[in-house]
Amino acid sequence: MNPLDFTKLDGLITAVAQDWQTGEVLMLAFMNQEAWEETVKTRRAVYFSRSRQRLWRKGEESGNVQLVKEILVDCDRDAVVLKVEQIGGAACHVGYNSCFFTRIEEDGTEKIIKAEKVFDPEKVYGKK
Amino acid sequence: MNPLDFTKLDGLITAVAQDWQTGEVLMLAFMNQEAWEETVKTRRAVYFSRSRQRLWRKGEESGNVQLVKEILVDCDRDAVVLKVEQIGGAACHVGYNSCFFTRIEEDGTEKIIKAEKVFDPEKVYGKK
Repeated sequence: MNPLDFTKLDGLITAVAQDWQTGEVLMLAFMNQEAWEETVKTRRAVYFSRSRQRLWRKGEESGNVQLVKEILVDCDRDAVVLKVEQIGGAACHVGYNSCFFTRIEEDGTEKIIKAEKVFDPEKVYGKK
Repeated sequence: MNPLDFTKLDGLITAVAQDWQTGEVLMLAFMNQEAWEETVKTRRAVYFSRSRQRLWRKGEESGNVQLVKEILVDCDRDAVVLKVEQIGGAACHVGYNSCFFTRIEEDGTEKIIKAEKVFDPEKVYGKK
């Protein structure tokens, strides 16, 4: 298995999911060794949820899985880029296609740059 | 100042630098509060070097600064995307334009996907 460096971040590496067609960064998450190996093997994005402290097979609840089209490793071998096809069109639990929907303007104010949500979180995850 | 969540990663957030024109992911690094504030204020990428435990003004040694064209914050406010103009054409200390120059192929083998280095690290940083 392709050895990565999990020592710098308490057993984790960082993973950037990028839309394989548009290049838009969809989300940032973490992987432990097991998540990494399963991702390479299955070609579906598997992360490690820090809040839940367990493997997080992206889309396991929402159905919005990420089909991995390309995997890139960085020079330090502690970060990866996954070029993915995002099933359902939305990577973010808030309902936008990307988690990066807030822009910091030159004057320091913030602006939501997405026109609309792809899905309604309450319908996908239920009221919380 | 735009409040981000530095609590999840021992005072750091993750930062993805992306080429503002091609969308290519150039590198992944970390920021502490000071690096974040200086980045927003100066519109030049400033990171926090974990190995050196100090602010890392990208390009301070190589001259390859990153001019920040756009700043995006994610839904959890613990990750940012910087769309940058990479001066000198190379973000990676190895000499490639991007740190993500290694691809994991379907059969698990690895391939360098960059044709050539933008610069010779020995000339920029000196022999180490």
